[in-house]
Amino acid sequence: MGKNKINIALFGLGRIGQMHAENLINHPQFYLKYIFDIDKKLTEKLSKKYNCIGIKNPNIAFRDKNIKSIFIATSTKTHLRFIEEGVKNKKVIFCEKPLDLDLKKINQSKKKLAKLNPKIQMGFNRRYDPAHNSLKEKLIKNKIGKLEKIIITSRDPAPPPLSYLKVSGGIFKDMMIHDFDLARYYAGSDEFESIFATGKYFSDKKYKKVKDLELATVVMKTKKGVQCIITNSRHCSFGYDQRIELFGSKGMMISDNQRDLETSIYSKNSTNNKSLFKTFFIERYSEAYRIQLDDLVKLCKKNVKPIATFEDGRKSLILAETAKKSLKTKKFETINF
Amino acid sequence: MGKNKINIALFGLGRIGQMHAENLINHPQFYLKYIFDIDKKLTEKLSKKYNCIGIKNPNIAFRDKNIKSIFIATSTKTHLRFIEEGVKNKKVIFCEKPLDLDLKKINQSKKKLAKLNPKIQMGFNRRYDPAHNSLKEKLIKNKIGKLEKIIITSRDPAPPPLSYLKVSGGIFKDMMIHDFDLARYYAGSDEFESIFATGKYFSDKKYKKVKDLELATVVMKTKKGVQCIITNSRHCSFGYDQRIELFGSKGMMISDNQRDLETSIYSKNSTNNKSLFKTFFIERYSEAYRIQLDDLVKLCKKNVKPIATFEDGRKSLILAETAKKSLKTKKFETINF
Amino acid sequence: MGKNKINIALFGLGRIGQMHAENLINHPQFYLKYIFDIDKKLTEKLSKKYNCIGIKNPNIAFRDKNIKSIFIATSTKTHLRFIEEGVKNKKVIFCEKPLDLDLKKINQSKKKLAKLNPKIQMGFNRRYDPAHNSLKEKLIKNKIGKLEKIIITSRDPAPPPLSYLKVSGGIFKDMMIHDFDLARYYAGSDEFESIFATGKYFSDKKYKKVKDLELATVVMKTKKGVQCIITNSRHCSFGYDQRIELFGSKGMMISDNQRDLETSIYSKNSTNNKSLFKTFFIERYSEAYRIQLDDLVKLCKKNVKPIATFEDGRKSLILAETAKKSLKTKKFETINF
Amino acid sequence: MGKNKINIALFGLGRIGQMHAENLINHPQFYLKYIFDIDKKLTEKLSKKYNCIGIKNPNIAFRDKNIKSIFIATSTKTHLRFIEEGVKNKKVIFCEKPLDLDLKKINQSKKKLAKLNPKIQMGFNRRYDPAHNSLKEKLIKNKIGKLEKIIITSRDPAPPPLSYLKVSGGIFKDMMIHDFDLARYYAGSDEFESIFATGKYFSDKKYKKVKDLELATVVMKTKKGVQCIITNSRHCSFGYDQRIELFGSKGMMISDNQRDLETSIYSKNSTNNKSLFKTFFIERYSEAYRIQLDDLVKLCKKNVKPIATFEDGRKSLILAETAKKSLKTKKFETINF
Repeated sequence: MGKNKINIALFGLGRIGQMHAENLINHPQFYLKYIFDIDKKLTEKLSKKYNCIGIKNPNIAFRDKNIKSIFIATSTKTHLRFIEEGVKNKKVIFCEKPLDLDLKKINQSKKKLAKLNPKIQMGFNRRYDPAHNSLKEKLIKNKIGKLEKIIITSRDPAPPPLSYLKVSGGIFKDMMIHDFDLARYYAGSDEFESIFATGKYFSDKKYKKVKDLELATVVMKTKKGVQCIITNSRHCSFGYDQRIELFGSKGMMISDNQRDLETSIYSKNSTNNKSLFKTFFIERYSEAYRIQLDDLVKLCKKNVKPIATFEDGRKSLILAETAKKSLKTKKFETINF
Repeated sequence: MGKNKINIALFGLGRIGQMHAENLINHPQFYLKYIFDIDKKLTEKLSKKYNCIGIKNPNIAFRDKNIKSIFIATSTKTHLRFIEEGVKNKKVIFCEKPLDLDLKKINQSKKKLAKLNPKIQMGFNRRYDPAHNSLKEKLIKNKIGKLEKIIITSRDPAPPPLSYLKVSGGIFKDMMIHDFDLARYYAGSDEFESIFATGKYFSDKKYKKVKDLELATVVMKTKKGVQCIITNSRHCSFGYDQRIELFGSKGMMISDNQRDLETSIYSKNSTNNKSLFKTFFIERYSEAYRIQLDDLVKLCKKNVKPIATFEDGRKSLILAETAKKSLKTKKFETINF
Repeated sequence: MGKNKINIALFGLGRIGQMHAENLINHPQFYLKYIFDIDKKLTEKLSKKYNCIGIKNPNIAFRDKNIKSIFIATSTKTHLRFIEEGVKNKKVIFCEKPLDLDLKKINQSKKKLAKLNPKIQMGFNRRYDPAHNSLKEKLIKNKIGKLEKIIITSRDPAPPPLSYLKVSGGIFKDMMIHDFDLARYYAGSDEFESIFATGKYFSDKKYKKVKDLELATVVMKTKKGVQCIITNSRHCSFGYDQRIELFGSKGMMISDNQRDLETSIYSKNSTNNKSLFKTFFIERYSEAYRIQLDDLVKLCKKNVKPIATFEDGRKSLILAETAKKSLKTKKFETINF
Repeated sequence: MGKNKINIALFGLGRIGQMHAENLINHPQFYLKYIFDIDKKLTEKLSKKYNCIGIKNPNIAFRDKNIKSIFIATSTKTHLRFIEEGVKNKKVIFCEKPLDLDLKKINQSKKKLAKLNPKIQMGFNRRYDPAHNSLKEKLIKNKIGKLEKIIITSRDPAPPPLSYLKVSGGIFKDMMIHDFDLARYYAGSDEFESIFATGKYFSDKKYKKVKDLELATVVMKTKKGVQCIITNSRHCSFGYDQRIELFGSKGMMISDNQRDLETSIYSKNSTNNKSLFKTFFIERYSEAYRIQLDDLVKLCKKNVKPIATFEDGRKSLILAETAKKSLKTKKFETINF
């Protein structure tokens, strides 16, 4: 078992980690050899379910010569440490977003890693989404001419648990980070140079302590003048709202919300009443999560730059940091990559 | 007043007649000189409103040399008589559908009129609808290749009054007649040769006496094998349902329902919940009613065949008659034009 | 391996059989023990791929006490034989549509099986499609009031290979059989009593020999007067067209075409230009194929009637036979179940 | 003629003035007595077409006791003068947007008018659009709960003539002024307090001299924290793009683009390819232009506050001015009404 397959170790067995585990098991080119989580009971329980080895010490994976890749889905603060240890041991790294909440640490890591010729893929799933990605392809094929505006709407059905909000780093680092990265993906080599942010804090008393935004609006501008508008909400009564609009000199492209069912109902009071959107990110981006594994295969087998890199992870955090700054200064802040 | 304009007399001042009156008054090339209705009080009242002459005897209009055209919107049984009288007096005729409920009488009229070089336009408003008509234009431009299927859905929001149902001639002659004609319009020179009809009688006791269909389904086939499906309903909880689908060897075209407002609402239970359709034929085909007057102008000024002719009126009635026959025999009946 | 799982044998390894194999392997409650096909080389090759036992004689499966279920995806003419043999050996049967092309044989089988308390599920995948099925659920919940019309559009992107067309039994038995069954599913206990069929033969010389319809239109009526229109085409330039419209006294429901991507493009010449539909039945009904296995699990474990039964298979063939008859007689034929 | 009707004088006979003339003539409660334009030949020519009196001196209208209302559609710089003169003469005023390009002058006018109990309606046509207005009504009816975001997209098919751009006052005062006003309409009593603006200057050399924005993005925030995003473009390859999205605590409402035809075409390369949007503002807002006349009737007959007031005109200009300031300072500027 695992012969000719890429032996991989998965760190982190939370909700998203378990989804990755299922995808790795079902992927024809990966063999999930080890799983690791700080919750040892969970590790043991899931090792049986996944028919793999549950380890209590991550070093077992780092030192195993047969392990080609480390898949990091642990809590944010451990990401850089595991990346560095993995790279030192010549492992190919997949790391969930964000890299870290502290830009200084990321920059230090960047320096350390620079000499080691690291192979790191960031888990920016939206880049791998077939619909969002088809817009990028059409953009390159000049289907809408010169890109002029990027409008991203991203609304979660409901806020995350209070416990998560306390350590998430705030809406720009935990939620909008995806949209920052996606905007950079569409803008391509034309990097953003200015950012303005505003928003509204949680009004429900329950969330008063976390001092985080419930609604946020960001405007960015690239060197060549492409404008980007990102609108985020921590709640959305009608579900998980995920839309992208790219406006260009010759046309417009939209990646719209997706539904499980394409049914509609007509009645006395309304027409074309459609069913609900895909529930949340796990459902909406299920295909993207699978496809990003194919990119990891390429990174393991060939020396091909992944679609989402460590540097993309670093830059998205710089955007988040500068958004935070703008929220305070109320200015169009310059972005320093 | 009326100088350089086409002097016209309008016969029939029911709901639809009054709509035609408004359109004639607002049309830049018509001067509504006379109006006539068997209801003399109504005629007088409306003559003031429309600032025209109310006549008690239609012959006044027939004998007035300045009258170029007669617009017939009276009850069905008077259509042929007025057409004949008008044509004898060299008037250009506009006649509402259907020509008559009795095919024999229509055929007799046809003979009589043949020698008189008549100019007659039938009020098949759907042929003039910009949306439905744009499908015909695209068909001619070969946008969907060879036509293979015509699917027409036509549902009224509610049945007409019982008094009308008693004299309407039944669903095929009063309602589906529009769809028969539209199907012939799309099929062009490839005439229909067979027809099958089925349906369901009114279940509400209120309508039991009229012995008319509440729901009807018709299948027709042209000489070249184009299949046509027409589905009619006398009721429709969600409004006036008017859809056309043309399927061809290279593509498909749809003329969909229209709304006054293009608004939608998203909530906990549904997404993309749109507003209601245009209420009924007067609203849905308002543009068509205006445009058909332009065709009447052409008929008055030039010797151009109208888009809807007396012969189209006759043939649609033959389809209706043969549908009625098929309903009884339960056979795919041959159509004899 | 296979412990606590339902041991199953798969017969038939054509394109659709291989898809079923993948689904069975990935299903958490099945263990694919045997595969069988008349092509012995293929059986051997795939036995390695699926990590199961390739058998040259189906009796090995029938006689294996550990085998709970037989999954039949072989050529149509072998279906009844395998069903009978399976039932005799107390196996739970899944059988692809159609049961057989010969109604007499089906009736004989029915008799034989009657005494054996058979457990048989028919592969009418559309009944299991989440979108189509949600319409059935809403119908039961009275969301559109009393059902009045069922309109089913089913168009294949391109005709099947000539070799298949020669033995398929014709468009009613190989293609419209799905739509007949789906119509019966929606109509529920109100069975169809009359059927009318018309169509157009293949015009391409290539298909002249098979004397099959390229386009077909069928109208049916239930005892209570529900009308059903089915429109089929063997070709469709814009892809796999699968639509259902249910019209009722209080509303309408539609199950529309589905796309892989919900993207649209706007340009000088058109707006809201959407991407293509899911390619063909394997893509469009992938979820349905998986879900029908859950129904098979229930049938294996409990004594629950499957959503699609042997009797449904028999009745759909009666509809196909009567449609064929109507095509010749050009009459609204009575259906005798 | 004109008896019982409201006698009105129309000032300004440009493209939009002529459209207003047609609407006034066709309106059942107005009698267009005078027209005035600085182009005397045009005035004379149109006086014949409209069957009214062409005047060379606006005072004739101001001094005519029978004139109830003055309709101002002249060039912007004359608006305040005509308003003041009209109000002094006790005329009911309709004035096209913007009031003036100079806020000081508007404030001076405001003072002068204050004592005269003025009746002034501003020509903010979007407030009167049935679709946009239905969103306001649903908002009041609490259909989406508490309003949280207003997103307005407004793109013109092509830039106005260079001659107009030179005197227009810039994108915020001539184009976005409509969106500023509409945002205020939806926000209701919760006024905006901060505004941020960015944009991109015309890149085409032809427009270099005017130093105006081709693309603009504005973010505003109300006292209660409602966020508003306005996106404007002077060009749009796919037509006149007019969309509104209101996001609330319980749902979302959209007023989408409108088409003349609801047709779509399906082919090898695309599905649901719809026809083009209504060409430009005259076509898109034709109904709104008619409906705002009904509001003027009310203002003439009763003492009812119009839907769009002088004060709305003044406040929208303050938003435009503050947007201009933010464009320079790159700050979230405070709005001082």
